[in-house]
Amino acid sequence: MVMIRYISTIVILMVLNACNGPSNEEAQLEDYRPAYHFTPKKGWMNDPNGLVFIDGVYHLFFQHNPDSTVWGPMHWGHATSTDLIHWEEQPIALFPDSLGTIFSGSAVIDRDNTAGFGKDALVAIFTHHNHDIEKQQTGLHQYQSIAYSLDKGITWTKYSGNPVLPNPGIWDFRDPKVMWHEEGQQWIMTLATKQTITFYGSKNLKEWTRLSEFGENIGAHGGVWECPDLLQFATPEGDKWVLLVSINPGGPNAGSATQYFVGDFDGKTFTTTQQDIKWMDYGPDNYAGVTFSNTANRKILIGWMSNWEYANVVPASTWRSGMTIARELGLEEHDGQWLLTAVPVKELDRVLEDSDVIERIDVEKELDLSTEVMPLNNTFEGSFVMQKTTGFEIQLANESGEQLSFGYDQSKNEYYIDRSKAGDASFNETFPKRAVAARIGSPAPLAFRFLIDRNSIEIFADQGKINMSALFFAKDAFSKMNFRVDDLTTIENLQVKGVNVKK
Amino acid sequence: MVMIRYISTIVILMVLNACNGPSNEEAQLEDYRPAYHFTPKKGWMNDPNGLVFIDGVYHLFFQHNPDSTVWGPMHWGHATSTDLIHWEEQPIALFPDSLGTIFSGSAVIDRDNTAGFGKDALVAIFTHHNHDIEKQQTGLHQYQSIAYSLDKGITWTKYSGNPVLPNPGIWDFRDPKVMWHEEGQQWIMTLATKQTITFYGSKNLKEWTRLSEFGENIGAHGGVWECPDLLQFATPEGDKWVLLVSINPGGPNAGSATQYFVGDFDGKTFTTTQQDIKWMDYGPDNYAGVTFSNTANRKILIGWMSNWEYANVVPASTWRSGMTIARELGLEEHDGQWLLTAVPVKELDRVLEDSDVIERIDVEKELDLSTEVMPLNNTFEGSFVMQKTTGFEIQLANESGEQLSFGYDQSKNEYYIDRSKAGDASFNETFPKRAVAARIGSPAPLAFRFLIDRNSIEIFADQGKINMSALFFAKDAFSKMNFRVDDLTTIENLQVKGVNVKK
Repeated sequence: MVMIRYISTIVILMVLNACNGPSNEEAQLEDYRPAYHFTPKKGWMNDPNGLVFIDGVYHLFFQHNPDSTVWGPMHWGHATSTDLIHWEEQPIALFPDSLGTIFSGSAVIDRDNTAGFGKDALVAIFTHHNHDIEKQQTGLHQYQSIAYSLDKGITWTKYSGNPVLPNPGIWDFRDPKVMWHEEGQQWIMTLATKQTITFYGSKNLKEWTRLSEFGENIGAHGGVWECPDLLQFATPEGDKWVLLVSINPGGPNAGSATQYFVGDFDGKTFTTTQQDIKWMDYGPDNYAGVTFSNTANRKILIGWMSNWEYANVVPASTWRSGMTIARELGLEEHDGQWLLTAVPVKELDRVLEDSDVIERIDVEKELDLSTEVMPLNNTFEGSFVMQKTTGFEIQLANESGEQLSFGYDQSKNEYYIDRSKAGDASFNETFPKRAVAARIGSPAPLAFRFLIDRNSIEIFADQGKINMSALFFAKDAFSKMNFRVDDLTTIENLQVKGVNVKK
Repeated sequence: MVMIRYISTIVILMVLNACNGPSNEEAQLEDYRPAYHFTPKKGWMNDPNGLVFIDGVYHLFFQHNPDSTVWGPMHWGHATSTDLIHWEEQPIALFPDSLGTIFSGSAVIDRDNTAGFGKDALVAIFTHHNHDIEKQQTGLHQYQSIAYSLDKGITWTKYSGNPVLPNPGIWDFRDPKVMWHEEGQQWIMTLATKQTITFYGSKNLKEWTRLSEFGENIGAHGGVWECPDLLQFATPEGDKWVLLVSINPGGPNAGSATQYFVGDFDGKTFTTTQQDIKWMDYGPDNYAGVTFSNTANRKILIGWMSNWEYANVVPASTWRSGMTIARELGLEEHDGQWLLTAVPVKELDRVLEDSDVIERIDVEKELDLSTEVMPLNNTFEGSFVMQKTTGFEIQLANESGEQLSFGYDQSKNEYYIDRSKAGDASFNETFPKRAVAARIGSPAPLAFRFLIDRNSIEIFADQGKINMSALFFAKDAFSKMNFRVDDLTTIENLQVKGVNVKK
């Protein structure tokens, strides 16, 4: 039963022209390929690497096995975009060499030619992983190397003095994220070292000095630490620093996830008074996320939308794995603690179809929004604001009887995603498990936004304070949408918008 | 002095809008990258491989070292086109594996599932080159393998039983070109074996039987034979077969070139009564050309536009080497001998700008066509028919004083290209040498067509009976065109047309 008290604008539930997206048949042929998230044309992808913004173009490099849909010899793939939504795949940037395969890392613009490769040279700092040394079980098989490009990432020259940071005897020694530290006038490398983060400093990207180590007896330690990132935020209380640390396994909903620490960095040492464990994304499928270099005050993160629990076995044909939507990070104080927030970059708005907004509607039990989603071929976003907080569930279902459910459980004060019935979930035991995320406090109103792109859902709740990303593998697109509430409440600014990448 | 007797249409020498092509500055940034010939986005390219037409799309695979601008570990790159002019580069198709790097070969559509990979599977037949075995100097380092794709060449599976044709002890044992022989109801592999061609037959692409060998004491033997192709032409005298054989060195103008033999093929043996050596292209820069599979009666050839004499050292930045224009092959009888003809595919006409035609003009000495070429940024074609044959030279010059000259020397009855003053020619001793091609007989009228695309010229004389392709490396685009004749003659259908790939 739907009880409509008043609607301040005339609501027309338009059946949008199905031309906006490919037909279901085409979508199935493309085997779950997202429409507005980056995927490689073929082969395997994992971590985003070397994210950097150059002259109006965003560069996304990525861990890539171009010759197979499972993990294997790592290359750096490459894609570019002017808006973080439309990506164009470029030729492979970095190939394995005599020092090893090319594991994760970052890229910086060397404005002052500190490395001597040229002013404004693009320098990639990455981990060489040597499989021959690995077999010797000495633990010395990972070390940091650099390469540079003078043509915006198309062609690369590896530095003849590689590695620039040899392995000091640490089995897991990888994923260098480098930034220029203005106050200290040097490059800072944030490096994953087993289950800690070690900071290194350098004046020239070639010679590195160990500065400090962080992470013992703090944070989640259910698995190895990987892909760190160190971010500086200006706040009314002065600068705050956020340290992102991906961890695998040991995430809040099993497997891979990214925790964060809010604290200070004095140019050498990261410190925090944070006691609890905080997660950047509570969903199962957002890992190894890092931010772009050279975006001034914008902090834009892209993560890998998968989980090592099942990454190699999710349904796939010619390619495997996509990236999350690019997210703008913020830092907000909430009840005396600092929280990292993440919302889709505003560039996404440009590809949203016009749609009608239900400015205000009272819902007692449920609202049928099927005519809204039916034509959108699983390529849309939804959002609303709930005035009085009550439990709710959004159910997206298709003609095959598959259903994706997500919402807010008021009794437990947690958001959740249930993908157990949303298509193939048989390939892994962990995959069908309900993912949950405790809400932080119970503020009203409750703002909720979610993105659907063929085989994925990304939830941004409470203005991005609680996020959840999850894959699913439904046979066909959702044609039904039910929005159920536990108790009568007022929903404002309710909208479902198709995403049209042809815009 | 130009003497114009009558012009049957009003000729307006239009200065075409320079928007048609990039500016000189952009062209220089792109370092000689052709506008309407295929080049890889980055890295090294040589032979075209696996040319095949599938469901309206032309697939061009190519020998590719993606990580360097010089020859190295061979992959099969991949590009697709619906019109043989606009090419879109695809992800790399075949990577080196434990059996070796991936040398040249061909691709067929297995309509009847003879190999068991699936009906209509795309099967690539290629040479594995094993560098480890090569070092042992046994000569057993090249053997033939196969791979198949069920998604039109995007993803490939190498056959587990590779190699399908082991090396029998022949040092140079490569470049399998496979076709279905309808009469014999089997696949025929035409393979380069040192300085001969060996034919093999197979019912299933997996087991091959040696059929015959051709080439001893016939044809040019100045170097190793490579990249053969066997073509069947229907003629009024019944079927004729043409065997293309690339040879390096030993071409007519030094280095690499492609000879051809016209004869018969009975399903097992190729025979010919041809006595002389015939060249498909007399220019220095057309090598390893082969034709597309699955184009019914059309025989469309693409060659590599370079020469092993200097291929690795021509001026280059981020990529090196382009392909020739796609050419339609024909077979014509001329004075009792059969000649292979090659002209640009008709698809090229679609991207030609409209231009005025000088339908008929008498020229006594020279014709200044500078206003025609000036706006075209070295991206154009020219053509004319000369009624009474006389020597002529076309001189294209730029503001840097560089000049490309080509034409017909009547005293020697030969066409020629002189690139010695057409820009950088210092990188190799052979490069500046004048290239010549004896005209076959002296028929009148003389029809002449040439294509210019930034750094290359391709000449098609006498309806494609004599062709010459050559690279040059001029600093900037030609702004002057002079057309000189030795004696008064009538030129008909003279036109210079910009090529606009945005069409």
